Amino acid sequence: MDTRFTRQFGIQLPIVGAPMGKVAGGRLAAAVSAAGGLGLIGGGYGEADWLEREFAAAGDARIGVGFITWSLAKQPQLLEQALAHRPAAVMLSFGEVAPFAPRIREAGARLICQVQTVAMAREALAAGADVLVAQGSEAGGHGLQRATFTLVPEVADLIAREAPDTLLLAAGGVADGRGLVAALALGADGVLVGTRLLMSPEALFPPGLQAAARAADGDLTVRSTVPDLARRYVWPPGFTARILHTGYAAEWHGREQELVEPPVLAREEARYWRGVAEGNPQDTCVMVGEGVGLIDDVAPAAELVRRMAAQARECLSALPRR
Amino acid sequence: MDTRFTRQFGIQLPIVGAPMGKVAGGRLAAAVSAAGGLGLIGGGYGEADWLEREFAAAGDARIGVGFITWSLAKQPQLLEQALAHRPAAVMLSFGEVAPFAPRIREAGARLICQVQTVAMAREALAAGADVLVAQGSEAGGHGLQRATFTLVPEVADLIAREAPDTLLLAAGGVADGRGLVAALALGADGVLVGTRLLMSPEALFPPGLQAAARAADGDLTVRSTVPDLARRYVWPPGFTARILHTGYAAEWHGREQELVEPPVLAREEARYWRGVAEGNPQDTCVMVGEGVGLIDDVAPAAELVRRMAAQARECLSALPRR
Repeated sequence: MDTRFTRQFGIQLPIVGAPMGKVAGGRLAAAVSAAGGLGLIGGGYGEADWLEREFAAAGDARIGVGFITWSLAKQPQLLEQALAHRPAAVMLSFGEVAPFAPRIREAGARLICQVQTVAMAREALAAGADVLVAQGSEAGGHGLQRATFTLVPEVADLIAREAPDTLLLAAGGVADGRGLVAALALGADGVLVGTRLLMSPEALFPPGLQAAARAADGDLTVRSTVPDLARRYVWPPGFTARILHTGYAAEWHGREQELVEPPVLAREEARYWRGVAEGNPQDTCVMVGEGVGLIDDVAPAAELVRRMAAQARECLSALPRR
Repeated sequence: MDTRFTRQFGIQLPIVGAPMGKVAGGRLAAAVSAAGGLGLIGGGYGEADWLEREFAAAGDARIGVGFITWSLAKQPQLLEQALAHRPAAVMLSFGEVAPFAPRIREAGARLICQVQTVAMAREALAAGADVLVAQGSEAGGHGLQRATFTLVPEVADLIAREAPDTLLLAAGGVADGRGLVAALALGADGVLVGTRLLMSPEALFPPGLQAAARAADGDLTVRSTVPDLARRYVWPPGFTARILHTGYAAEWHGREQELVEPPVLAREEARYWRGVAEGNPQDTCVMVGEGVGLIDDVAPAAELVRRMAAQARECLSALPRR
């Protein structure tokens, strides 16, 4: 499975583990890298202790780290902390990249920028990204509206015209080997995989939430502001999170104005975090992508990466003759 | 480009022209079939004279026809009218298929059912569909929320488990050869192409609207209820139409309550149809899919079909070795 991405990163498989905030820890990232891909620790909103612990948990694996850009901007010292671990790459999502780009590249890490529109792709190229991730709305967690199937080739065309050495990963809905081959066909050099890896014992994701995801088909997700309202997280306009449309989410999606009334919110915020702590999908939001309908087990991350590669090879063999 | 679909339909290319309502007329359908695919006339909401004229315009080409199912249910005689022309296939979208399925198959036409969710795919299989079209939200015109990239493989898995002889087409965002190969990788036997063919002289689509689509990138579309509100069309709950977020649409999207106030609606309804008649994108909604960002010309339909096939062959050659 040789692509420009594997060659430039010196890895075997064009599969990157998505830096799911506080869910993709050091063990998961290390397992993805050990299997031949590239694992990324999910720095998320940013927490110094967590970051230190998870870099330690990754041992000497060659991994990278990702941050939510607008949140990193509030505590930029976390970038230095991460760079001290000499990550192979730093991935920035959701916010202005330009203030961080020079420092990341100067430190010898590749700069991976996740974008949700063609306009954002243009900005990321201008900031000097080494890799763009074109993230479709199928993805679990935060994102915008454009879908993987058209965003990837359109960004590929932009790259070909304006910055042909930049690499491209597809994200959003890539949950098996068919998705990997489809992404390559659409013009990507590799894929960023979230939800599939969430369903591994290495992910810092409670078994109760994994069980809810395992039971769901792809019809059962929705993009919503409920998890951010419940946690009082203020995201830039337009961003929503894809979650299971069950339990807590089904109760509040469509009733957002009621949710944010102060006494209700105080109660529901506490309930949300209790649901996380207890791993109870009835009391919190389960952030998974539409690819959840392609997933019916929990398995070790390294096995998942190898399985995806094996299925991709089968899929390539089954395509019509050239 | 041999697939189960081409073999069962006895055609050269796994490319079907979407039955875009009143836009895919007989000339467009015939051109797609002549190029080796399968063209479908877009019966849309249903109008006997139009249908007769467009079947005539198709001459003796082997084509099919599509209807909006919930609208056909109000004037079921149109089905008999269409079947009298011995179409190769009848495609039904948006509504309950079961009442029409036996008659279509008895008449010797293949039954193609377009679905937007896994649940709908199950219903269509139960109704005895010969072909499912898994339509992602990227598509222009009416649809739901699920995206092509995950809906196609999930429906492919359902078919493999429950009705392995049923064929599968991917729709929504397929605008070039890369999309065709990606669709095949995801488990489809072929593709249904709308927006790309809209941009041909054979499409019954005014040059002024084609010019607006040509100028747009894929970031510039939105799913909206505005065109249905403006035309007083009552669609089943949940359905929206993907349109360019310009002119008329940009003016009213997000201001739907104002639009439907009686004096406003009277004015804006007239304006909408005037915009259609004049081909003025400022005064009407331009229904195109997210794939519009992959399209930068208007070209004869047969050339577009052949170009898609040629690019698909190139794309297959460029994929990593098996």
